[in-house]
Amino acid sequence: MLVVKLGGGAGIDHAALVADVAALVARGERVILVHGTSHQANELGERLGHPPRFVQSPSGHTSRYTDRQTLDIFMMAAAGLVNTTLVEALQAAGVDALGLTGLDGRLLVGQRKASIRVVEGGKPRVLRDDWTGTIERVNAALLQSLLAAGYVPVVAPLALSHAGEGLNVDGDRAAGAIAVALAADVLVLLTNVPGLLHAFPDERSLVPRIARDALDAWLPVAQGRMKKKLLGAGEALAGGVRRVVLADARRDAPLAAALAGNGTVIE
Amino acid sequence: MLVVKLGGGAGIDHAALVADVAALVARGERVILVHGTSHQANELGERLGHPPRFVQSPSGHTSRYTDRQTLDIFMMAAAGLVNTTLVEALQAAGVDALGLTGLDGRLLVGQRKASIRVVEGGKPRVLRDDWTGTIERVNAALLQSLLAAGYVPVVAPLALSHAGEGLNVDGDRAAGAIAVALAADVLVLLTNVPGLLHAFPDERSLVPRIARDALDAWLPVAQGRMKKKLLGAGEALAGGVRRVVLADARRDAPLAAALAGNGTVIE
Repeated sequence: MLVVKLGGGAGIDHAALVADVAALVARGERVILVHGTSHQANELGERLGHPPRFVQSPSGHTSRYTDRQTLDIFMMAAAGLVNTTLVEALQAAGVDALGLTGLDGRLLVGQRKASIRVVEGGKPRVLRDDWTGTIERVNAALLQSLLAAGYVPVVAPLALSHAGEGLNVDGDRAAGAIAVALAADVLVLLTNVPGLLHAFPDERSLVPRIARDALDAWLPVAQGRMKKKLLGAGEALAGGVRRVVLADARRDAPLAAALAGNGTVIE
Repeated sequence: MLVVKLGGGAGIDHAALVADVAALVARGERVILVHGTSHQANELGERLGHPPRFVQSPSGHTSRYTDRQTLDIFMMAAAGLVNTTLVEALQAAGVDALGLTGLDGRLLVGQRKASIRVVEGGKPRVLRDDWTGTIERVNAALLQSLLAAGYVPVVAPLALSHAGEGLNVDGDRAAGAIAVALAADVLVLLTNVPGLLHAFPDERSLVPRIARDALDAWLPVAQGRMKKKLLGAGEALAGGVRRVVLADARRDAPLAAALAGNGTVIE
Protein backbone atom coordinates (compact mmCIF):
# COMPACT_ATOMS: atom_id res chain seq x y z
CA MET A 1 0.00 0.00 0.00
CA LEU A 2 1.12 3.46 -0.97
CA VAL A 3 0.22 6.89 0.44
CA VAL A 4 0.99 9.84 -1.84
CA LYS A 5 0.87 13.49 -0.82
CA LEU A 6 0.62 15.91 -3.72
CA GLY A 7 1.89 19.36 -2.76
CA GLY A 8 -0.35 22.39 -3.02
CA GLY A 9 2.32 24.85 -4.12
CA ALA A 10 2.28 26.96 -7.27
CA GLY A 11 3.25 25.23 -10.50
CA ILE A 12 2.12 21.75 -9.51
CA ASP A 13 -0.03 20.15 -12.16
CA HIS A 14 -2.31 17.21 -11.47
CA ALA A 15 -2.18 15.64 -14.92
CA ALA A 16 1.18 13.83 -14.68
CA LEU A 17 0.36 12.34 -11.29
CA VAL A 18 -3.11 11.27 -12.40
CA ALA A 19 -1.66 9.21 -15.28
CA ASP A 20 0.85 7.67 -12.90
CA VAL A 21 -1.80 6.74 -10.34
CA ALA A 22 -3.97 5.25 -13.07
CA ALA A 23 -1.09 2.99 -14.18
CA LEU A 24 -0.36 1.86 -10.62
CA VAL A 25 -4.03 1.19 -9.82
CA ALA A 26 -4.40 -0.77 -13.07
CA ARG A 27 -1.57 -3.03 -11.83
CA GLY A 28 -3.51 -3.69 -8.62
CA GLU A 29 -1.62 -1.33 -6.29
CA ARG A 30 -3.70 0.22 -3.52
CA VAL A 31 -3.14 3.98 -3.41
CA ILE A 32 -4.37 6.78 -1.15
CA LEU A 33 -3.88 10.36 -2.27
CA VAL A 34 -3.64 13.35 0.05
CA HIS A 35 -3.45 16.77 -1.53
CA GLY A 36 -2.31 20.21 -0.46
CA THR A 37 -4.19 23.40 -1.18
CA SER A 38 -1.96 26.31 -0.24
CA HIS A 39 -1.63 27.99 -3.64
CA GLN A 40 -5.35 27.72 -4.46
CA ALA A 41 -6.36 28.87 -0.96
CA ASN A 42 -4.04 31.88 -1.24
CA GLU A 43 -5.45 32.79 -4.62
CA LEU A 44 -9.06 32.42 -3.52
CA GLY A 45 -8.38 34.45 -0.37
CA GLU A 46 -6.90 37.26 -2.48
CA ARG A 47 -9.88 37.22 -4.85
CA LEU A 48 -12.33 37.30 -1.93
CA GLY A 49 -10.55 40.17 -0.22
CA HIS A 50 -9.28 38.05 2.67
CA PRO A 51 -5.62 37.39 1.75
CA PRO A 52 -3.63 34.76 3.62
CA ARG A 53 -1.69 35.73 6.72
CA PHE A 54 1.37 33.67 7.49
CA VAL A 55 2.76 33.61 10.99
CA GLN A 56 5.93 32.29 12.56
CA SER A 57 5.99 30.16 15.68
CA PRO A 58 8.65 30.81 18.35
CA SER A 59 10.40 27.63 17.11
CA GLY A 60 10.60 29.06 13.58
CA HIS A 61 7.81 27.18 11.78
CA THR A 62 5.71 29.16 9.32
CA SER A 63 2.00 28.47 9.17
CA ARG A 64 -1.24 29.93 7.89
CA TYR A 65 -3.22 31.85 10.51
CA THR A 66 -6.70 30.44 10.06
CA ASP A 67 -9.56 32.55 11.38
CA ARG A 68 -13.07 31.28 10.62
CA GLN A 69 -13.27 33.16 7.34
CA THR A 70 -9.93 31.66 6.27
CA LEU A 71 -11.22 28.21 7.24
CA ASP A 72 -14.27 28.71 5.01
CA ILE A 73 -11.99 29.79 2.15
CA PHE A 74 -9.78 26.80 2.85
CA MET A 75 -12.83 24.50 2.73
CA MET A 76 -13.86 25.98 -0.62
CA ALA A 77 -10.38 25.63 -2.09
CA ALA A 78 -9.50 22.24 -0.55
CA ALA A 79 -12.76 20.29 -0.40
CA GLY A 80 -14.45 22.21 -3.20
CA LEU A 81 -11.99 22.94 -5.96
CA VAL A 82 -8.82 20.87 -5.52
CA ASN A 83 -10.41 17.70 -4.22
CA THR A 84 -13.30 17.66 -6.69
CA THR A 85 -11.19 18.47 -9.77
CA LEU A 86 -8.62 15.86 -8.72
CA VAL A 87 -11.38 13.27 -8.37
CA GLU A 88 -12.72 14.42 -11.76
CA ALA A 89 -9.30 14.02 -13.44
CA LEU A 90 -8.83 10.58 -11.89
CA GLN A 91 -12.33 9.47 -12.94
CA ALA A 92 -11.64 10.68 -16.49
CA ALA A 93 -8.51 8.50 -16.41
CA GLY A 94 -10.57 5.48 -15.36
CA VAL A 95 -9.67 5.55 -11.65
CA ASP A 96 -12.65 5.18 -9.30
CA ALA A 97 -11.58 8.01 -6.99
CA LEU A 98 -13.59 9.06 -3.93
CA GLY A 99 -12.91 12.40 -2.25
CA LEU A 100 -13.06 12.93 1.50
CA THR A 101 -12.09 15.55 4.02
CA GLY A 102 -10.94 14.57 7.48
CA LEU A 103 -14.38 15.61 8.78
CA ASP A 104 -16.10 12.87 6.76
CA GLY A 105 -16.78 9.84 8.88
CA ARG A 106 -14.35 11.28 11.47
CA LEU A 107 -11.52 10.30 9.16
CA LEU A 108 -8.99 12.62 10.83
CA VAL A 109 -9.73 13.71 14.40
CA GLY A 110 -7.47 15.97 16.39
CA GLN A 111 -6.91 18.70 18.89
CA ARG A 112 -7.81 22.26 17.96
CA LYS A 113 -5.29 24.98 18.76
CA ALA A 114 -7.80 27.76 19.40
CA SER A 115 -5.01 30.17 20.17
CA ILE A 116 -1.45 30.12 18.87
CA ARG A 117 1.80 31.74 19.97
CA VAL A 118 3.50 33.63 17.21
CA VAL A 119 6.44 35.98 16.78
CA GLU A 120 5.67 39.21 14.92
CA GLY A 121 8.22 42.00 14.50
CA GLY A 122 10.48 40.12 16.88
CA LYS A 123 7.83 40.11 19.63
CA PRO A 124 5.81 37.18 20.97
CA ARG A 125 2.03 37.42 20.60
CA VAL A 126 -0.98 35.19 21.09
CA LEU A 127 -3.52 34.95 18.25
CA ARG A 128 -7.06 33.78 19.04
CA ASP A 129 -9.84 32.43 16.77
CA ASP A 130 -7.46 29.94 15.16
CA TRP A 131 -8.96 26.94 13.38
CA THR A 132 -5.95 24.67 13.00
CA GLY A 133 -5.02 21.50 14.78
CA THR A 134 -2.96 18.36 14.93
CA ILE A 135 -4.22 14.91 14.06
CA GLU A 136 -4.52 12.37 16.85
CA ARG A 137 -6.71 9.67 15.35
CA VAL A 138 -7.28 8.24 11.87
CA ASN A 139 -10.39 6.23 10.94
CA ALA A 140 -8.38 3.48 9.26
CA ALA A 141 -11.45 1.22 9.01
CA LEU A 142 -13.16 3.70 6.69
CA LEU A 143 -10.17 3.89 4.35
CA GLN A 144 -9.68 0.12 4.42
CA SER A 145 -13.31 -0.57 3.51
CA LEU A 146 -13.14 1.94 0.64
CA LEU A 147 -9.88 0.40 -0.63
CA ALA A 148 -11.37 -3.10 -0.35
CA ALA A 149 -14.34 -1.97 -2.46
CA GLY A 150 -11.96 -0.73 -5.16
CA TYR A 151 -12.07 3.02 -4.54
CA VAL A 152 -9.05 5.32 -4.48
CA PRO A 153 -9.50 7.71 -1.52
CA VAL A 154 -8.49 11.32 -2.19
CA VAL A 155 -8.12 13.21 1.08
CA ALA A 156 -8.28 16.99 1.61
CA PRO A 157 -6.22 18.38 4.52
CA LEU A 158 -9.08 19.22 6.87
CA ALA A 159 -9.73 17.49 10.16
CA LEU A 160 -12.41 17.38 12.85
CA SER A 161 -11.81 18.60 16.40
CA HIS A 162 -13.03 16.60 19.39
CA ALA A 163 -15.85 19.15 19.67
CA GLY A 164 -16.87 18.63 16.05
CA GLU A 165 -15.23 21.71 14.54
CA GLY A 166 -13.53 21.82 11.16
CA LEU A 167 -9.76 22.32 11.28
CA ASN A 168 -7.11 23.23 8.74
CA VAL A 169 -4.30 20.69 9.17
CA ASP A 170 -0.92 20.21 7.59
CA GLY A 171 -1.22 17.97 4.54
CA ASP A 172 2.20 16.32 4.89
CA ARG A 173 1.54 15.33 8.46
CA ALA A 174 -1.98 14.18 7.54
CA ALA A 175 -0.44 11.93 4.90
CA GLY A 176 2.06 10.66 7.48
CA ALA A 177 -0.70 9.90 9.98
CA ILE A 178 -2.69 8.03 7.33
CA ALA A 179 0.39 6.05 6.24
CA VAL A 180 0.99 5.00 9.85
CA ALA A 181 -2.65 4.11 10.50
CA LEU A 182 -2.76 1.92 7.39
CA ALA A 183 0.73 0.48 7.91
CA ALA A 184 1.62 1.65 4.40
CA ASP A 185 4.86 0.43 2.86
CA VAL A 186 5.79 3.74 1.31
CA LEU A 187 4.89 7.40 1.80
CA VAL A 188 5.71 9.69 -1.12
CA LEU A 189 5.67 13.45 -0.59
CA LEU A 190 5.56 15.19 -3.98
CA THR A 191 6.38 18.87 -3.99
CA ASN A 192 7.85 21.63 -6.17
CA VAL A 193 11.48 20.85 -5.35
CA PRO A 194 13.44 17.69 -6.18
CA GLY A 195 13.74 16.69 -2.51
CA LEU A 196 15.79 17.96 0.44
CA LEU A 197 18.40 20.44 -0.80
CA HIS A 198 21.47 20.97 1.37
CA ALA A 199 22.09 24.34 -0.29
CA PHE A 200 18.51 25.54 -0.92
CA PRO A 201 17.46 26.71 -3.53
CA ASP A 202 20.24 25.09 -5.57
CA GLU A 203 18.52 22.04 -7.04
CA ARG A 204 21.88 20.37 -7.71
CA SER A 205 22.36 20.11 -3.95
CA LEU A 206 19.82 17.28 -3.60
CA VAL A 207 20.39 14.94 -0.67
CA PRO A 208 19.63 11.58 -2.30
CA ARG A 209 19.47 9.40 0.78
CA ILE A 210 19.05 9.86 4.52
CA ALA A 211 19.32 7.11 7.07
CA ARG A 212 16.42 7.14 9.48
CA ASP A 213 18.68 7.76 12.47
CA ALA A 214 20.24 10.78 10.79
CA LEU A 215 16.95 12.57 10.12
CA ASP A 216 17.14 14.93 13.10
CA ALA A 217 20.59 16.08 12.07
CA TRP A 218 19.17 17.27 8.73
CA LEU A 219 16.36 19.32 10.27
CA PRO A 220 18.39 22.57 10.52
CA VAL A 221 19.19 22.29 6.80
CA ALA A 222 15.52 22.19 5.76
CA GLN A 223 14.02 25.49 4.64
CA GLY A 224 10.39 26.61 4.97
CA ARG A 225 7.84 23.89 4.27
CA MET A 226 10.57 21.25 4.01
CA LYS A 227 10.92 21.33 7.80
CA LYS A 228 7.36 20.01 8.20
CA LYS A 229 7.97 17.39 5.54
CA LEU A 230 10.94 16.04 7.48
CA LEU A 231 8.88 16.07 10.68
CA GLY A 232 6.09 14.21 8.87
CA ALA A 233 8.62 11.75 7.48
CA GLY A 234 10.06 11.15 10.94
CA GLU A 235 6.61 10.55 12.40
CA ALA A 236 5.77 8.12 9.59
CA LEU A 237 9.00 6.13 10.04
CA ALA A 238 8.58 6.07 13.82
CA GLY A 239 5.05 4.75 13.24
CA GLY A 240 6.23 1.82 11.14
CA VAL A 241 6.25 3.09 7.55
CA ARG A 242 9.22 1.48 5.81
CA ARG A 243 10.26 4.24 3.43
CA VAL A 244 9.51 7.92 2.83
CA VAL A 245 10.44 9.61 -0.45
CA LEU A 246 10.52 13.39 -0.91
CA ALA A 247 10.32 13.96 -4.64
CA ASP A 248 9.57 16.33 -7.47
CA ALA A 249 5.94 16.77 -8.60
CA ARG A 250 6.90 18.96 -11.60
CA ARG A 251 8.00 16.20 -13.99
CA ASP A 252 6.50 13.45 -16.09
CA ALA A 253 5.63 10.30 -14.19
CA PRO A 254 6.49 11.89 -10.84
CA LEU A 255 5.26 8.97 -8.78
CA ALA A 256 7.04 6.30 -10.82
CA ALA A 257 10.23 8.37 -10.60
CA ALA A 258 9.88 8.73 -6.83
CA LEU A 259 9.29 5.00 -6.41
CA ALA A 260 12.40 4.35 -8.51
CA GLY A 261 14.39 6.32 -5.96
CA ASN A 262 14.56 9.79 -7.53
CA GLY A 263 14.39 12.37 -4.79
CA THR A 264 15.38 12.10 -1.15
CA VAL A 265 14.82 8.58 0.11
CA ILE A 266 14.56 8.21 3.88
CA GLU A 267 14.57 4.72 5.34
CA MET B 1 -35.06 4.66 5.02
CA LEU B 2 -35.44 8.35 4.46
CA VAL B 3 -33.97 10.68 1.84
CA VAL B 4 -34.06 14.38 2.70
CA LYS B 5 -33.25 17.21 0.32
CA LEU B 6 -32.42 20.51 1.99
CA GLY B 7 -33.03 23.45 -0.33
CA GLY B 8 -30.24 25.82 -1.22
CA GLY B 9 -32.33 28.99 -1.30
CA ALA B 10 -31.74 32.14 0.72
CA GLY B 11 -32.89 32.08 4.33
CA ILE B 12 -32.50 28.35 4.87
CA ASP B 13 -30.61 27.57 8.03
CA HIS B 14 -28.97 24.21 8.68
CA ALA B 15 -29.27 24.21 12.46
CA ALA B 16 -32.91 23.16 12.83
CA LEU B 17 -32.55 20.31 10.36
CA VAL B 18 -29.32 19.11 11.96
CA ALA B 19 -31.01 18.72 15.36
CA ASP B 20 -33.88 16.86 13.70
CA VAL B 21 -31.57 14.49 11.84
CA ALA B 22 -29.61 13.82 15.03
CA ALA B 23 -32.82 12.82 16.83
CA LEU B 24 -33.90 10.51 14.00
CA VAL B 25 -30.48 8.88 13.68
CA ALA B 26 -30.37 8.36 17.47
CA ARG B 27 -33.62 6.40 17.12
CA GLY B 28 -31.98 4.14 14.53
CA GLU B 29 -33.47 5.67 11.38
CA ARG B 30 -31.24 5.54 8.30
CA VAL B 31 -31.08 8.96 6.66
CA ILE B 32 -29.44 10.32 3.52
CA LEU B 33 -29.15 14.07 3.08
CA VAL B 34 -28.92 15.86 -0.25
CA HIS B 35 -28.38 19.61 -0.19
CA GLY B 36 -28.86 22.47 -2.61
CA THR B 37 -26.36 25.24 -3.15
CA SER B 38 -28.01 27.92 -5.27
CA HIS B 39 -27.86 30.84 -2.85
CA GLN B 40 -24.23 30.21 -1.84
CA ALA B 41 -23.16 29.64 -5.45
CA ASN B 42 -24.85 32.89 -6.51
CA GLU B 43 -23.15 34.81 -3.73
CA LEU B 44 -19.72 33.33 -4.43
CA GLY B 45 -20.11 34.00 -8.16
CA GLU B 46 -20.94 37.65 -7.42
CA ARG B 47 -17.93 37.99 -5.12
CA LEU B 48 -15.63 36.40 -7.71
CA GLY B 49 -16.89 38.64 -10.52
CA HIS B 50 -18.69 35.81 -12.35
CA PRO B 51 -22.34 36.31 -11.40
CA PRO B 52 -24.88 33.59 -12.12
CA ARG B 53 -26.72 33.59 -15.41
CA PHE B 54 -30.16 32.04 -15.42
CA VAL B 55 -31.69 30.85 -18.66
CA GLN B 56 -35.13 29.65 -19.69
CA SER B 57 -35.73 26.50 -21.67
CA PRO B 58 -38.33 26.51 -24.49
CA SER B 59 -40.61 24.51 -22.14
CA GLY B 60 -40.38 27.24 -19.49
CA HIS B 61 -37.92 25.76 -16.98
CA THR B 62 -35.37 28.10 -15.45
CA SER B 63 -31.85 26.82 -14.89
CA ARG B 64 -28.33 28.01 -14.17
CA TYR B 65 -26.15 28.30 -17.28
CA THR B 66 -22.99 26.54 -16.16
CA ASP B 67 -19.83 27.35 -18.11
CA ARG B 68 -16.62 25.83 -16.75
CA GLN B 69 -15.92 28.80 -14.51
CA THR B 70 -19.43 28.53 -13.05
CA LEU B 71 -18.90 24.80 -12.50
CA ASP B 72 -15.70 25.55 -10.54
CA ILE B 73 -17.61 28.12 -8.46
CA PHE B 74 -20.40 25.59 -7.98
CA MET B 75 -17.84 22.98 -6.82
CA MET B 76 -16.40 25.46 -4.31
CA ALA B 77 -19.83 26.40 -2.97
CA ALA B 78 -21.40 22.92 -3.04
CA ALA B 79 -18.60 20.48 -2.26
CA GLY B 80 -16.45 22.99 -0.40
CA LEU B 81 -18.61 25.24 1.71
CA VAL B 82 -22.13 23.84 2.03
CA ASN B 83 -21.25 20.16 2.18
CA THR B 84 -18.32 20.57 4.57
CA THR B 85 -20.10 22.94 6.96
CA LEU B 86 -23.18 20.69 6.96
CA VAL B 87 -20.99 17.69 7.80
CA GLU B 88 -19.30 19.82 10.48
CA ALA B 89 -22.66 20.79 12.05
CA LEU B 90 -23.86 17.18 11.99
CA GLN B 91 -20.62 15.93 13.55
CA ALA B 92 -20.89 18.59 16.27
CA ALA B 93 -24.39 17.19 16.96
CA GLY B 94 -23.01 13.67 17.29
CA VAL B 95 -24.03 12.43 13.83
CA ASP B 96 -21.27 10.59 11.95
CA ALA B 97 -21.87 12.38 8.65
CA LEU B 98 -19.83 11.71 5.52
CA GLY B 99 -19.91 14.13 2.61
CA LEU B 100 -19.83 13.08 -1.03
CA THR B 101 -20.37 14.59 -4.42
CA GLY B 102 -21.82 12.55 -7.25
CA LEU B 103 -18.30 12.28 -8.71
CA ASP B 104 -17.06 10.32 -5.69
CA GLY B 105 -17.06 6.61 -6.39
CA ARG B 106 -19.27 7.33 -9.43
CA LEU B 107 -22.15 7.94 -7.04
CA LEU B 108 -24.26 9.84 -9.61
CA VAL B 109 -23.46 9.24 -13.26
CA GLY B 110 -25.31 10.90 -16.10
CA GLN B 111 -25.43 12.43 -19.50
CA ARG B 112 -23.83 15.81 -20.05
CA LYS B 113 -25.78 18.42 -21.99
CA ALA B 114 -22.81 20.17 -23.58
CA SER B 115 -25.13 22.56 -25.35
CA ILE B 116 -28.56 23.73 -24.28
CA ARG B 117 -31.49 25.37 -26.07
CA VAL B 118 -32.68 28.49 -24.38
CA VAL B 119 -35.07 31.34 -25.05
CA GLU B 120 -33.62 34.83 -24.62
CA GLY B 121 -35.54 37.98 -25.46
CA GLY B 122 -38.25 35.80 -26.97
CA LYS B 123 -35.77 34.18 -29.37
CA PRO B 124 -34.42 30.63 -29.36
CA ARG B 125 -30.63 30.26 -28.96
CA VAL B 126 -28.14 27.48 -28.39
CA LEU B 127 -25.58 27.92 -25.60
CA ARG B 128 -22.37 25.84 -25.70
CA ASP B 129 -19.82 25.01 -22.98
CA ASP B 130 -22.57 23.91 -20.60
CA TRP B 131 -21.59 21.64 -17.71
CA THR B 132 -24.97 20.34 -16.57
CA GLY B 133 -26.57 16.97 -16.96
CA THR B 134 -29.20 14.49 -15.92
CA ILE B 135 -28.61 11.52 -13.67
CA GLU B 136 -28.94 8.06 -15.19
CA ARG B 137 -27.24 5.81 -12.65
CA VAL B 138 -26.82 5.83 -8.87
CA ASN B 139 -24.13 3.81 -7.08
CA ALA B 140 -26.55 2.41 -4.51
CA ALA B 141 -23.98 -0.11 -3.25
CA LEU B 142 -21.72 2.70 -2.06
CA LEU B 143 -24.52 4.40 -0.12
CA GLN B 144 -25.73 1.09 1.31
CA SER B 145 -22.29 0.15 2.58
CA LEU B 146 -21.83 3.56 4.19
CA LEU B 147 -25.27 3.33 5.83
CA ALA B 148 -24.51 -0.20 7.04
CA ALA B 149 -21.29 1.09 8.64
CA GLY B 150 -23.28 3.74 10.51
CA TYR B 151 -22.47 6.83 8.44
CA VAL B 152 -24.98 9.45 7.34
CA PRO B 153 -24.20 10.31 3.71
CA VAL B 154 -24.46 14.01 2.81
CA VAL B 155 -24.59 14.46 -0.96
CA ALA B 156 -23.72 17.59 -2.96
CA PRO B 157 -25.59 18.07 -6.27
CA LEU B 158 -22.71 17.32 -8.63
CA ALA B 159 -22.54 14.31 -10.93
CA LEU B 160 -20.05 12.62 -13.22
CA SER B 161 -20.55 12.40 -16.98
CA HIS B 162 -19.88 9.17 -18.87
CA ALA B 163 -16.63 10.79 -20.03
CA GLY B 164 -15.57 11.58 -16.46
CA GLU B 165 -16.52 15.26 -16.39
CA GLY B 166 -18.03 17.05 -13.43
CA LEU B 167 -21.63 18.18 -13.88
CA ASN B 168 -23.95 20.53 -12.05
CA VAL B 169 -27.20 18.63 -11.52
CA ASP B 170 -30.55 19.49 -10.03
CA GLY B 171 -30.56 18.66 -6.32
CA ASP B 172 -34.24 17.72 -6.12
CA ARG B 173 -33.95 15.25 -8.95
CA ALA B 174 -30.68 13.92 -7.51
CA ALA B 175 -32.52 13.27 -4.24
CA GLY B 176 -35.32 11.59 -6.20
CA ALA B 177 -32.87 9.35 -8.07
CA ILE B 178 -31.18 8.35 -4.81
CA ALA B 179 -34.54 7.63 -3.14
CA VAL B 180 -35.49 5.36 -6.04
CA ALA B 181 -32.11 3.58 -6.12
CA LEU B 182 -32.29 2.85 -2.39
CA ALA B 183 -36.02 2.04 -2.43
CA ALA B 184 -36.52 4.67 0.26
CA ASP B 185 -39.86 4.83 2.05
CA VAL B 186 -40.07 8.59 2.08
CA LEU B 187 -38.49 11.49 0.19
CA VAL B 188 -38.74 14.88 1.92
CA LEU B 189 -37.98 18.03 -0.09
CA LEU B 190 -37.40 20.92 2.32
CA THR B 191 -37.49 24.38 0.82
CA ASN B 192 -38.28 28.00 1.65
CA VAL B 193 -42.02 27.68 1.05
CA PRO B 194 -44.54 25.58 3.03
CA GLY B 195 -45.18 23.26 0.05
CA LEU B 196 -47.05 23.61 -3.23
CA LEU B 197 -49.08 26.84 -3.20
CA HIS B 198 -52.08 27.06 -5.50
CA ALA B 199 -51.95 30.86 -5.38
CA PHE B 200 -48.19 31.47 -5.13
CA PRO B 201 -46.81 33.35 -3.18
CA ASP B 202 -49.78 33.27 -0.78
CA GLU B 203 -48.63 30.79 1.86
CA ARG B 204 -52.21 30.23 3.02
CA SER B 205 -52.89 28.58 -0.34
CA LEU B 206 -50.96 25.41 0.57
CA VAL B 207 -52.10 22.26 -1.18
CA PRO B 208 -51.95 19.73 1.69
CA ARG B 209 -52.33 16.52 -0.26
CA ILE B 210 -51.99 15.35 -3.84
CA ALA B 211 -52.90 11.91 -5.08
CA ARG B 212 -50.15 10.42 -7.16
CA ASP B 213 -52.37 10.22 -10.25
CA ALA B 214 -53.24 13.90 -9.99
CA LEU B 215 -49.65 15.12 -9.96
CA ASP B 216 -49.51 16.07 -13.65
CA ALA B 217 -52.61 18.20 -13.30
CA TRP B 218 -50.85 20.31 -10.67
CA LEU B 219 -47.76 21.00 -12.80
CA PRO B 220 -49.14 24.18 -14.40
CA VAL B 221 -49.82 25.61 -10.92
CA ALA B 222 -46.18 25.21 -9.79
CA GLN B 223 -44.03 28.33 -10.03
CA GLY B 224 -40.27 28.47 -10.63
CA ARG B 225 -38.27 25.82 -8.78
CA MET B 226 -41.46 24.12 -7.61
CA LYS B 227 -41.95 22.72 -11.13
CA LYS B 228 -38.72 20.68 -10.82
CA LYS B 229 -39.72 19.54 -7.36
CA LEU B 230 -42.98 18.13 -8.72
CA LEU B 231 -41.10 16.46 -11.56
CA GLY B 232 -38.63 14.97 -9.06
CA ALA B 233 -41.54 13.83 -6.89
CA GLY B 234 -43.20 12.20 -9.86
CA GLU B 235 -40.01 10.37 -10.83
CA ALA B 236 -39.54 9.18 -7.25
CA LEU B 237 -43.11 7.86 -6.98
CA ALA B 238 -42.87 6.20 -10.39
CA GLY B 239 -39.65 4.56 -9.19
CA GLY B 240 -41.28 2.99 -6.15
CA VAL B 241 -40.92 5.59 -3.38
CA ARG B 242 -44.06 5.41 -1.26
CA ARG B 243 -44.43 9.05 -0.24
CA VAL B 244 -42.97 12.44 -1.14
CA VAL B 245 -43.42 15.45 1.15
CA LEU B 246 -42.74 19.04 0.04
CA ALA B 247 -42.27 21.01 3.23
CA ASP B 248 -40.94 24.11 4.90
CA ALA B 249 -37.27 24.27 5.91
CA ARG B 250 -37.65 27.60 7.73
CA ARG B 251 -39.15 26.32 10.97
CA ASP B 252 -38.12 24.41 14.07
CA ALA B 253 -37.98 20.65 13.64
CA PRO B 254 -38.65 20.90 9.89
CA LEU B 255 -38.11 17.22 9.24
CA ALA B 256 -40.29 16.00 12.11
CA ALA B 257 -43.01 18.38 10.94
CA ALA B 258 -42.76 17.12 7.36
CA LEU B 259 -42.91 13.49 8.50
CA ALA B 260 -46.00 14.37 10.56
CA GLY B 261 -47.69 15.50 7.36
CA ASN B 262 -47.11 19.26 7.40
CA GLY B 263 -46.56 20.43 3.86
CA THR B 264 -47.72 18.93 0.59
CA VAL B 265 -47.92 15.15 0.88
CA ILE B 266 -47.90 13.25 -2.41
CA GLU B 267 -48.64 9.54 -2.36
